[in-house]
Amino acid sequence: MTTLLRILKPDDFHVHFRTGKMMETVVPLTAAWCGRALVMPNTIPPILTGKQACAYSQSIKLAAVGYNFDPLMTIKIVPTTTPNVVAEAKSLGVIAGKAYPVGVTTNSDDGVHNFRAQNMQEVFSAMQDVGMVLCLHGETPHDFCLDREEKFLDTLRWLAENFPRLKIVLEHITTAAGIKSVTELPDTVAGTITVHHLLLTLDDVVGGNIQPHHFCKPLAKRPEDLVELVLTATGGNQKFFLGTDSAPHAVTKKECACGCAGVFTAPVALSLLASIFEKRQRLNYLELFTSRFGAEFYGLPVNSTIVMEKTVWQVPAMYGDVVPFLAGTTLSWKIVD
Amino acid sequence: MTTLLRILKPDDFHVHFRTGKMMETVVPLTAAWCGRALVMPNTIPPILTGKQACAYSQSIKLAAVGYNFDPLMTIKIVPTTTPNVVAEAKSLGVIAGKAYPVGVTTNSDDGVHNFRAQNMQEVFSAMQDVGMVLCLHGETPHDFCLDREEKFLDTLRWLAENFPRLKIVLEHITTAAGIKSVTELPDTVAGTITVHHLLLTLDDVVGGNIQPHHFCKPLAKRPEDLVELVLTATGGNQKFFLGTDSAPHAVTKKECACGCAGVFTAPVALSLLASIFEKRQRLNYLELFTSRFGAEFYGLPVNSTIVMEKTVWQVPAMYGDVVPFLAGTTLSWKIVD
Repeated sequence: MTTLLRILKPDDFHVHFRTGKMMETVVPLTAAWCGRALVMPNTIPPILTGKQACAYSQSIKLAAVGYNFDPLMTIKIVPTTTPNVVAEAKSLGVIAGKAYPVGVTTNSDDGVHNFRAQNMQEVFSAMQDVGMVLCLHGETPHDFCLDREEKFLDTLRWLAENFPRLKIVLEHITTAAGIKSVTELPDTVAGTITVHHLLLTLDDVVGGNIQPHHFCKPLAKRPEDLVELVLTATGGNQKFFLGTDSAPHAVTKKECACGCAGVFTAPVALSLLASIFEKRQRLNYLELFTSRFGAEFYGLPVNSTIVMEKTVWQVPAMYGDVVPFLAGTTLSWKIVD
Repeated sequence: MTTLLRILKPDDFHVHFRTGKMMETVVPLTAAWCGRALVMPNTIPPILTGKQACAYSQSIKLAAVGYNFDPLMTIKIVPTTTPNVVAEAKSLGVIAGKAYPVGVTTNSDDGVHNFRAQNMQEVFSAMQDVGMVLCLHGETPHDFCLDREEKFLDTLRWLAENFPRLKIVLEHITTAAGIKSVTELPDTVAGTITVHHLLLTLDDVVGGNIQPHHFCKPLAKRPEDLVELVLTATGGNQKFFLGTDSAPHAVTKKECACGCAGVFTAPVALSLLASIFEKRQRLNYLELFTSRFGAEFYGLPVNSTIVMEKTVWQVPAMYGDVVPFLAGTTLSWKIVD
């Protein structure tokens, strides 16, 4: 007997594809199970304009040849972004702008210093007018690492209040406080949850040995936060949907004296989600989280379907020079080609 | 002009010397600035008896040839330790027993499951009777990483109350709660503070990039805890003295997927302490913390003196195959040979 599960094909509303050879390695691993993915613009150099996003999109499509996969493009919202940049990007198909507070994570040194500055307000206003979603890395740059998400929530509330037609996504929520804020704010505000934040606490990063492959920004938090994230993701609340934040780094940039933030979940994300929802006896809610709520928030049609099989497989030690999340362990759901 | 500082030669009341080639590398780096050091027994295999401690002491003395240095020996208090083992160890010169709750740090899988078990109480009673100090790794094994020290304080209070003549040291305190407990308990209870815990918070481990050479057990905590630790160490309170917990690991055991806990501070500890006390305009309190309060608690005479010079030097990248704390950075006090 084989247990199969057919669901609407997921979208990953937060992924890092990088560029060059790394991109060629990782794009197929997302395209294998996603109909679409929202591609983060914090490459080197960054994606700051619609034209750059178009060129980047073309290179991703080349890397995804053979897959039925559409990259959803973003630009990076930086202090030099203008309303014109926003309007042009939207006209070229860019659906979201990603804002990083300065210095909060990988390649964010050109990020936003002050969300309430006049020029930033003009950019958010333009995004609101053209219907471009604002995606937020919701952490303050200068607070203690465990407080940064909660401290950012004032800015989230201020944005929601002052730009009431702007669609806003609080990305990769890690705290019960973040879940609460998004839940309480109007329906223009949604949140993404990663797969690794449904499995890890800070204990998995530094509670036993130190594990750089579990290290990301925002940091995984307390057990109480993990419980709240799992309840929310599996709870059928349309404000919360999947954004893996799958973030590949070469192993030499992780296993070193000063390692980069990012967990590479693309090859294991859907398999792990199936197990997480199954454990909660919520498999019937899986496609809401992975395939429906995000599409609805972004105003996109749902994808066709994908089939998973309940069968054990071992996560490879490496993909190219990247160590995947839970490398070498055995998972219990596998995507049927 | 040269600024010199002459102080009583320090004692390090918590150091890991390991064995073999590693021991030969690290012992001289402590012996260069310490008159004595309390040597932790969690080697492989562990030091469980007085005879083993004597043999270990001999090998340390060989590694310290040419230095005026005395190792102070400990045994590991484990579930199989008996009052006879304690009495024999004391007669052979062992001055302290170190108890690790099971699984809390490097080589502690044979640690104590239950401090209130009858057989453990008999061991603590024997230690009290023969005058052997009980050194505690004060963390609970199963709580969230940031809560473990505070959760252990009930056990500390219970020990102090039930063994009122037993000298107890809460090692490597990392929290304001730990400082408060030791302060409030009778004078039989003291605490050690490491150098790295006077400089780091969790932000230095995982707040920016992930930095395995800043990773130790107990974890560095919040900025408020750091402030309290610095105020206490520099504050002239005789209940608190230096125990570096200098803990070497080969670089391959730190910069990897699953790195060991431990910060190797032996080569830089005194230099950093001078700067910390100087910054607080408390240089005149330095030798109380490094050289007097610990000796008084353990009932030992003070050492002769050592001279430091205010001069810049660069911390080497490696000592053998061990990366020292703050490798490659420039420090401003140096021990005069």
